Amino acid sequence: MTIKTILGNSDFAEFLRGKKATFFLSLSNTDTAKIEGITQAGIPGMIHLTPTLDAEFLCTGEVRSLKNIATTPKGVPTPGLITRAAHMLHPFSALALLDLGLEIKPKIDYFPLYGFGLDPSGSIDTGANIDAVELFEKGVEFAEEYICRSDYIILGESVPSGTTTALATALALGYSARDKFSSSFKNAPSSMKESVVDTALSCCGEGDDLFEKLSRVSDNMLIFNAGFVLGLLKRKITTVLAGGTQMAALLLVINSILKHTNQTINSHNLALCTTKWVYEDPNSDIKGLLEMVDFPINAYYADFDFSLSSHPALKLYDEGEAKEGVGAGAALMYACLNGITKEQITRKVESFLG
Amino acid sequence: MTIKTILGNSDFAEFLRGKKATFFLSLSNTDTAKIEGITQAGIPGMIHLTPTLDAEFLCTGEVRSLKNIATTPKGVPTPGLITRAAHMLHPFSALALLDLGLEIKPKIDYFPLYGFGLDPSGSIDTGANIDAVELFEKGVEFAEEYICRSDYIILGESVPSGTTTALATALALGYSARDKFSSSFKNAPSSMKESVVDTALSCCGEGDDLFEKLSRVSDNMLIFNAGFVLGLLKRKITTVLAGGTQMAALLLVINSILKHTNQTINSHNLALCTTKWVYEDPNSDIKGLLEMVDFPINAYYADFDFSLSSHPALKLYDEGEAKEGVGAGAALMYACLNGITKEQITRKVESFLG
Repeated sequence: MTIKTILGNSDFAEFLRGKKATFFLSLSNTDTAKIEGITQAGIPGMIHLTPTLDAEFLCTGEVRSLKNIATTPKGVPTPGLITRAAHMLHPFSALALLDLGLEIKPKIDYFPLYGFGLDPSGSIDTGANIDAVELFEKGVEFAEEYICRSDYIILGESVPSGTTTALATALALGYSARDKFSSSFKNAPSSMKESVVDTALSCCGEGDDLFEKLSRVSDNMLIFNAGFVLGLLKRKITTVLAGGTQMAALLLVINSILKHTNQTINSHNLALCTTKWVYEDPNSDIKGLLEMVDFPINAYYADFDFSLSSHPALKLYDEGEAKEGVGAGAALMYACLNGITKEQITRKVESFLG
Repeated sequence: MTIKTILGNSDFAEFLRGKKATFFLSLSNTDTAKIEGITQAGIPGMIHLTPTLDAEFLCTGEVRSLKNIATTPKGVPTPGLITRAAHMLHPFSALALLDLGLEIKPKIDYFPLYGFGLDPSGSIDTGANIDAVELFEKGVEFAEEYICRSDYIILGESVPSGTTTALATALALGYSARDKFSSSFKNAPSSMKESVVDTALSCCGEGDDLFEKLSRVSDNMLIFNAGFVLGLLKRKITTVLAGGTQMAALLLVINSILKHTNQTINSHNLALCTTKWVYEDPNSDIKGLLEMVDFPINAYYADFDFSLSSHPALKLYDEGEAKEGVGAGAALMYACLNGITKEQITRKVESFLG
């Protein structure tokens, strides 16, 4: 297993070799996920539980709010299995959870679950109804107050239908991103997704400013983390965005906010890392999204697949079903940078499936 | 290798995954060990050297005050081998030694050996003769002054015949613990142990208060550490008691002191971890002992045995000879929580035996 560079060079990643990371998992529900058929990130009828279950499994190895690990209808298990495997083989120095509007809180003790008084955001086809300015500022404030005891932060997410809200967000902000977003599906239901996104965009008025647009078509994860990441960068805390096209959309939101507020940042301490499945996905274009960002950004993917496994549920990843989530790509990078092999990750993930 | 929960849930242990611990080894001699046949924790005639040798081996990998690693008469090597193996495979961030009344001080340089001006305690069949109030307060003061540079503390012990003094202590404090204590023997010499304990209990007068009872029938490790642990909890320093029924007895002492002084504590940051050999021992009942504690307590055992080894000395562990000591159970948990496997521990321990 190696780290491949999408943009920039390998030095940022190499510099993190052997260093310790705190892994943040951003958890959020958007009612967009309730539109039938829009996502396969979870169990039909219980999609809203996915972030809750991902948090429980990542922290404790147990799924407490439901009997089985969240699987998609085709039986693809959550990429959280990969993140948990990395954490068991070479633990993060801490796990931290951000409750960015959960329907059901995870049943876990000891682990910090940072709350910001947020409800799930609305469905974007009728208006997400987020107070984007306030939420962004909460992110900035959290970064200002946060005491980082690790060398760097990895920031992942679990937001069902988050690629749909990410696409809507990028388009609302004026990026030519229509065919560049990934999906938890192999054969993404693009016509449905596009029609939801088009409806969402039609909610935006001509005179809407940036934050008004975000309020209508985005999700809590993107808006809060735009503030959080900008706050971390101001404090020169090294941060890895752990995800694919959703995290690329976060960079686009940050890019737009910087322009909107006439600011610049030093992005030297920021990178993105995703999976090979996202990088190689023919239906999306992570590199294209990242190239729309005006500041320089290092981006990587972990060269991991399940070719060493014959487990049918895992082979589905290699076939393009499920590609990223729960920071799986960056967790693989973290494992790789600490001497863990593809074989070890494969065996550990298999051990969870029995 | 996994961590199994005896009481509470897995969250306390999971929260420690990837975190760094300082390992404290409490070393003490009680003349109780001089009663012939009461313990097999060491070399006949040189039982008093066991804590000294355990400290030397844990810190340096060498046994300096004697030519061979302490073995029991049947050839069972000290569980300190397991703790040393864990330390070599994923080192504790620091080792610290508590001299709670040693006959012979370990011959080691650099490692802190905290002294409190203590002599070995007396044999409990004639009276341990400990100034329990002063010793308890020394423990509290040490905790107040100690600067903890790790995420948490693991507190182990090496006290030959410590299960006998622990049993006497629990009974003197009024706990129904007669059949619940472990022994270094597979076939524990219970009639002899019981007769020593009964003689010890007969030394207690009707009007003895808690600390007077401890003065007569307990040992320095239990009394000092009751103060030490209470002091650590007051400072919210996360602490793992590394041991079996002796550490359960320490919790019973703490429980009685809290009642005696009309105090309560928040035990959220305290847990106990022992070995599978203690947990599965048919002659003792660690869970039963822990259930007599009035405050909630998380307790675990490391699911490790020597089934991957064919070394005859190690197979004796799986047959029930020697079960715990030198914090072996918690050291296994520490290793497991940092990605070390059963295979790695087994091979490392074997390498010590040649």
